[in-house]
Amino acid sequence: MVVVMLRGCPESNIEDVIERIHHHPGLSAHLVRGVERTVVGVVGQTFPELKDMLEMLPGVEAVLPISKPYKLSSREFQVEDTTFKVGDVTIGGPDLVVMAGPCAVESEEQVVATARAVKAAGAHILRGGAFKPSTSPYSFRGKGKEGLEILAVARQETGLPIITEVMAPGDVELVAEYTDVLQVGTRNMQNYILLDEVGKANKPVMLKRGFAATIQEWLLSAEYILSQGNRRLMLCERGIRTFETYTRNTMDVSAVPVIHKESHLPVIGDPSHGTGKWDLVTPLALAVVAAGADGLLIEVHPTPDTALKDGAQSLTFENFQRLMEKVAVVAQAVGRPLAPNLAGSATRR
Amino acid sequence: MVVVMLRGCPESNIEDVIERIHHHPGLSAHLVRGVERTVVGVVGQTFPELKDMLEMLPGVEAVLPISKPYKLSSREFQVEDTTFKVGDVTIGGPDLVVMAGPCAVESEEQVVATARAVKAAGAHILRGGAFKPSTSPYSFRGKGKEGLEILAVARQETGLPIITEVMAPGDVELVAEYTDVLQVGTRNMQNYILLDEVGKANKPVMLKRGFAATIQEWLLSAEYILSQGNRRLMLCERGIRTFETYTRNTMDVSAVPVIHKESHLPVIGDPSHGTGKWDLVTPLALAVVAAGADGLLIEVHPTPDTALKDGAQSLTFENFQRLMEKVAVVAQAVGRPLAPNLAGSATRR
Amino acid sequence: MVVVMLRGCPESNIEDVIERIHHHPGLSAHLVRGVERTVVGVVGQTFPELKDMLEMLPGVEAVLPISKPYKLSSREFQVEDTTFKVGDVTIGGPDLVVMAGPCAVESEEQVVATARAVKAAGAHILRGGAFKPSTSPYSFRGKGKEGLEILAVARQETGLPIITEVMAPGDVELVAEYTDVLQVGTRNMQNYILLDEVGKANKPVMLKRGFAATIQEWLLSAEYILSQGNRRLMLCERGIRTFETYTRNTMDVSAVPVIHKESHLPVIGDPSHGTGKWDLVTPLALAVVAAGADGLLIEVHPTPDTALKDGAQSLTFENFQRLMEKVAVVAQAVGRPLAPNLAGSATRR
Amino acid sequence: MVVVMLRGCPESNIEDVIERIHHHPGLSAHLVRGVERTVVGVVGQTFPELKDMLEMLPGVEAVLPISKPYKLSSREFQVEDTTFKVGDVTIGGPDLVVMAGPCAVESEEQVVATARAVKAAGAHILRGGAFKPSTSPYSFRGKGKEGLEILAVARQETGLPIITEVMAPGDVELVAEYTDVLQVGTRNMQNYILLDEVGKANKPVMLKRGFAATIQEWLLSAEYILSQGNRRLMLCERGIRTFETYTRNTMDVSAVPVIHKESHLPVIGDPSHGTGKWDLVTPLALAVVAAGADGLLIEVHPTPDTALKDGAQSLTFENFQRLMEKVAVVAQAVGRPLAPNLAGSATRR
Repeated sequence: MVVVMLRGCPESNIEDVIERIHHHPGLSAHLVRGVERTVVGVVGQTFPELKDMLEMLPGVEAVLPISKPYKLSSREFQVEDTTFKVGDVTIGGPDLVVMAGPCAVESEEQVVATARAVKAAGAHILRGGAFKPSTSPYSFRGKGKEGLEILAVARQETGLPIITEVMAPGDVELVAEYTDVLQVGTRNMQNYILLDEVGKANKPVMLKRGFAATIQEWLLSAEYILSQGNRRLMLCERGIRTFETYTRNTMDVSAVPVIHKESHLPVIGDPSHGTGKWDLVTPLALAVVAAGADGLLIEVHPTPDTALKDGAQSLTFENFQRLMEKVAVVAQAVGRPLAPNLAGSATRR
Repeated sequence: MVVVMLRGCPESNIEDVIERIHHHPGLSAHLVRGVERTVVGVVGQTFPELKDMLEMLPGVEAVLPISKPYKLSSREFQVEDTTFKVGDVTIGGPDLVVMAGPCAVESEEQVVATARAVKAAGAHILRGGAFKPSTSPYSFRGKGKEGLEILAVARQETGLPIITEVMAPGDVELVAEYTDVLQVGTRNMQNYILLDEVGKANKPVMLKRGFAATIQEWLLSAEYILSQGNRRLMLCERGIRTFETYTRNTMDVSAVPVIHKESHLPVIGDPSHGTGKWDLVTPLALAVVAAGADGLLIEVHPTPDTALKDGAQSLTFENFQRLMEKVAVVAQAVGRPLAPNLAGSATRR
Repeated sequence: MVVVMLRGCPESNIEDVIERIHHHPGLSAHLVRGVERTVVGVVGQTFPELKDMLEMLPGVEAVLPISKPYKLSSREFQVEDTTFKVGDVTIGGPDLVVMAGPCAVESEEQVVATARAVKAAGAHILRGGAFKPSTSPYSFRGKGKEGLEILAVARQETGLPIITEVMAPGDVELVAEYTDVLQVGTRNMQNYILLDEVGKANKPVMLKRGFAATIQEWLLSAEYILSQGNRRLMLCERGIRTFETYTRNTMDVSAVPVIHKESHLPVIGDPSHGTGKWDLVTPLALAVVAAGADGLLIEVHPTPDTALKDGAQSLTFENFQRLMEKVAVVAQAVGRPLAPNLAGSATRR
Repeated sequence: MVVVMLRGCPESNIEDVIERIHHHPGLSAHLVRGVERTVVGVVGQTFPELKDMLEMLPGVEAVLPISKPYKLSSREFQVEDTTFKVGDVTIGGPDLVVMAGPCAVESEEQVVATARAVKAAGAHILRGGAFKPSTSPYSFRGKGKEGLEILAVARQETGLPIITEVMAPGDVELVAEYTDVLQVGTRNMQNYILLDEVGKANKPVMLKRGFAATIQEWLLSAEYILSQGNRRLMLCERGIRTFETYTRNTMDVSAVPVIHKESHLPVIGDPSHGTGKWDLVTPLALAVVAAGADGLLIEVHPTPDTALKDGAQSLTFENFQRLMEKVAVVAQAVGRPLAPNLAGSATRR
C-alpha cells in the first residue's frame, strides 16, 4: 500500500500517517520524498480496511493498494490450472467441454428430448433450470423440486451429468442431491450467504459473473467459495451490462484470457445470455473458444418460439448441431479439441 | 404489444403471427399496413414471455411492449403517495426524514454515542449494520446477532427507531425481532428468495437500488415485496455503477423524480454510498432533497479514520451536525421541511 | 509514479527499472522492499508516456501515477475561483447565472420571442444553436450563418448576451464575431483541433463534458483551451451515458462539487440534456443548484411540440417561469442567489 | 412509428394526435384500441423529429420508432457485401486482411523497420499515426506532415499501402495525398464536419466506433460518409467504455456479427485498443476473426518499451509474427483465409 500525501501538506501530517501505520503490529512505513509530493510506503501484511482508515487522515491525497485482494483464486497462489471431473469429463483440462440444454425445465418430454439431441450433437453436460430467477414476480419462476426430478430422469436416460442453478442458501442441500454441478447465477454472485453454502457443499460449482461485476469482484466471490474448502470451482462469463442495447448484454470475451492470467480456475463462456439473440450465439461461441475458454454453456430448446423463458436466445436442435460442427473446427485450430463425444456410448446407468 | 414485421416479409409470416396471437385466449390481433412495413398490434392482457415467443417467428423484426411490467408499485395502480409510520415519524409524508448512523455496528459505545449525536443533530432513525455484505471474505462481515442487541440498546437509550440490513432469507425473522425497518441491500436487490421473505414480514422495508439495476428492474423487485402483502415499502437510491471512477458510484439524482412519477412509493437518498467520499456527502444530500427525496440515509461515525467499514464516506458528529443545518434550509426551500426534531424529547421507553 | 514489481521477480528486473528511470534526466528512483513485493518510487518531473514505458519492462506488475495530469485547470495551480464577465453578468462569482433558449435557431420570431420570455423570467444569457450536431445526416443540422444573424437580432432586441455552439475549427472566427460565449459540445470535447482554436479565440468558452468522458479527461480537455491562453473558461455537466435508459443521460450531479474541489473553473448544469424529459428538468435544475453549480443552461421553446430539435426536453415559457421561481428560492437557500434580474433594464443597444 | 396513449386519457387527446399526424403530408394514422390502452400507428415516410413532437402531446405515454434510421449503410438498402481494393488487397472479400504498424510515427528508421517486419509476417497494409489525438495537451501529438512523408517512404520501400488518421476537416486533402486509407478515430466518430469531408474524398475510409457509441449511432455516422458519395467505407470495432477497468476498453466482439447482419459494410477488429494490454491482443484477435471480422488492425513497434505512444498495447516483431501464425490457422478454420502474403513480392514502385 502506498500513501500519497497532498502537495505541501505540513510535516505533522506525514508523521501522523507513519504513526498510524506503526500502530498496527507487523506494518512499517517507508518515506519517499519527491520534488512535488511525499509518498509513504506501507510494508507488511495489510488488510482491506487500512486503505479507508489512512485515506481519512489529514494531508492524505490517496492510498493506492499494490497487492491483489484475492489469494486462493490467484495464479500466484496456485500456478497449475485447476482441473476436476464432472462425470467422465474433465473441466479445465486439455479438451473443450460443452454444456447445453433449456433455460428452464418445463416438462419431462422437453428435457429428455433436448438431452438426447444435445448428446447426439456432442455436448457433455445437460443444463436446465428448476429454480429460476425472474425479474418480474409474475413471470415463470421454475418448477422447483419437480424440475430437479425431471433432470434426474434425463440423466438416467442419457448418462449426461447435470448442471442446475441454486438460488437459496436453504436449497443447497436439496439441489446437491440431484445435480452434478451447482450453478450460482449472475444476480447471486454477491449473495455471500449462498456462496458460503455452496463453498461447504461436496459438489463442483459454476460461478457466473455478476452482470455488473468487475473481474476483481468476481474473483473475490470465488474466494468465498474456495475459502470454505470447495476447490472444484469454475467461472462463467455471461456478458456484462453496458450502454449498448442492441444485445441483451455485452459479452466480455477478454475476461477469458484475463481469468487465465490472473487465476488458475477454468472459465466457461455463455454466449446465449451474453448476446440474448439466437443468431449471435454461434459467432460468439466461436469467439470465446478462440480466446481460450475451457467450455461453453448453450441454451437449446425443442421449440424456442414456445419456450417459457429465454426463447429468443435458444437454439433449435438443428442450429445447435451446426454450432457444434463449427465449434469443433475452431477448437481444433486453437489446440483445445472438443472432449470425446459420448454420443455413441451406452447409457451410464 | 406491437409486432413489427420485416420489410417485404411474405404474407404467410403475417398470418402466422396473427394465428399465434389468437392462439392465446383473450388476445386479439390488429393489422396496420404501412408503406414500408406492416405492424400487428396485440390487444388484451399480455404476459412477459409473449415478447420472446413472437420475436422468434419468421418475418418478425421486433416486438415492442407498450404496457409497464410493474403493477402494484405503479402510480396507475395507486395514485396517492404511500405513507407509513416508523416509530413516531412518517415516511412519505410532508416532512423529510433523516436516518443516520455507522455503516457497521462495532461496539455498544460506538453505536450509543453515534445514536445520541445524530439524535441531537435532528436525525429520526438510527442506521447500523449487524450483518454486513463484504466484497472480500477476508473483510469484516459484521457482528451478527450481537450487533442487533447493541442496536436495541441504542434504541432503548435514545428512543430512535432502528433500520438494519438483512442478508439471508433465514435471518428475516431474527432481524425483524430487533429492528424497526428491514433493509435489503444493493447486492440483494435481485435476491428474489429474500424479497419474498421480507414481503411476508410484518415490518417496513427499505429496498436499495441494485448498483446496476434499471429503474424498471428496481420497481419489479419492489413488486416482489408488495405482491407478498407488505405495503410498507420505501426505495433508496444509492448510486449506480458507471465508467466514472472518481466517485465510488454515480448518484442518479434523477431517479428521485422518476420514482415519484412512476410510483407511489417513498424514495430515500443515500449520498454516502452514492459518492463514497465524505466531503461530497453534503452537496449530494442537498441535491437529492432539492430533487424531492422523502428522506436521507447518512453514514456517521465517531472516528471515521478508525472505522471498520466505509470510513472514507462517513461523517464525524460535527460534520453531520453541519449537514443537518444545511439540509434544514434546503428542505424548507422546497417545501419539505425536516420532520420535527426529537432531540428534546424524553427517551421513549 | 510508483512502480510495483511482481512478487518474486529476479533482482535484475528491479535493477533494470531503476536504470531506466535514471536514464531520464531529473528523475530518480527510490526502492521500498516489502515482505511480499518491492516497489520503486519515481521522484522528479514525470511525463505521461513514462507509465507505459515502465509497464512494459519485465517483472513490472503495475505503474501507479500519483500526480494529476492536469495543471492549469487544477486548484493546486490556482487557488482562487476563476471569474469573468459575459456582458454585465459575472460567471463564477457569488451569484447564480441562468442561460436559456431554444436548442436550435429556427426563425427570428421564435428566437426573439424566446429571448424576451426568458429575460422576463430572469435569465441572463440567451442560448441557441446555429450549427447543430445531429446523430443522423437526415436530421436538421442548423441554419448556420443565418442562425448567427438571428441570434444577433435577438441580442439587439433584448440586450441578452449570446452563447452558441461552434463545431468546426474553421468556423471559430465566424462564430466569435457574433457570439458572446463559444460553446464546445459534448461530441467535440475531445476534438483537439477545435479546442486549440477556441483556446486562441478572444471570447469566453463553455466546454461541455463528453457524454462518456471521465472528470479527469474533461479537465484535460479544459487544459487544451487554457494552455492556448484563453482563461475565460467554464465547464458544463450535461449528463453521462450509463446503462439506464429511462432518462436520455444520467446527470452526474456529483461532478459539480468534484470540479469545485479539483479545479478553479466555474461549472454549469444542463438538466435539459441531462434528463431529456421536460418534466424532469426542474427537479434536476434544483439539484445541481443545491450541489453548488455556478449556473444553469435550460432549453426553452415557444411551442416544444413543434420544435425541430429536442422538443421533448424543452420547457414552455410558462414552465420556465415556474422553474425560475423555484430556482430562486433554492439558490437563496444555499447562499448563491440568482444574479440580478435584467428584465426591468432598458435594452442595451 | 407507434404512438402509445396513456391509460384512460380523454378521447380528445387521441383526436389531437391523429390530427397532428394528418397535418404532415404523406402520413396517415391508424387507431388500435386495446383493453387497457389505445395505440396510434403512423403510416408513411416519417422523420426523426416526429418522435419528439408527438411525445410532447397531452395523453401520449411513449412513441416507438419502428423503422431503422440508417438507410445507405443498411442490409435492406444493399444486400451484397461492400468490397473494395486497397492496393492489391480486397477489403470485405473472401480473405482476411491485416493492417499493422506503430501507433505513432516516430522516425523513418522505426517506421521502415516495422513495415518490413509486418510485411514479412504477412500483413497487407501499414498503419501509423502522423496526426495523433492525445488526451493531454502535454503528450506527444504526432509529427504531422513529416510523419506523412515518412509513411510514404515506408510504402516506397515495401509496397505496403498505408492507413493513417485524419483529425481536422482542413487536413483531409493533405492526408489524402499521402495515404491509401483515411482513418477517422474513435474520438471523432461524431465529428460531423470531418465526416462530411472524408465523405467527399476520393479515398477509402475506415471509421472507428466511438468508445461510447451505440451500434446504431455508429451506422448513422457511416451514413454521413456514404451520403456524401464515398462508398469505399469500412468500420472498425476498437472496444467500448464500460465499468471494467482491468482492460483499457471492453472489446465488443458481438459488434462484428451485428454489423454483418445490419449492414453490408466490412468490419475490422482492433484488439490493441480493445484491450490496451499486449498480452491480450492475440486472444482477442483470434476471437474477432472467429466471430467473422473482415480484418485486423494491430499495433506493432520495434521496441514497445520506448514507444512514444501506446507501448503497453504494442507487439514486438516476434510477437506479431506469432500472432499471424495463430490468426492464419483460425482464419482458415472459419473459412476466411488470410489474404495472400505479399512478403515474397517485389517492391511495387
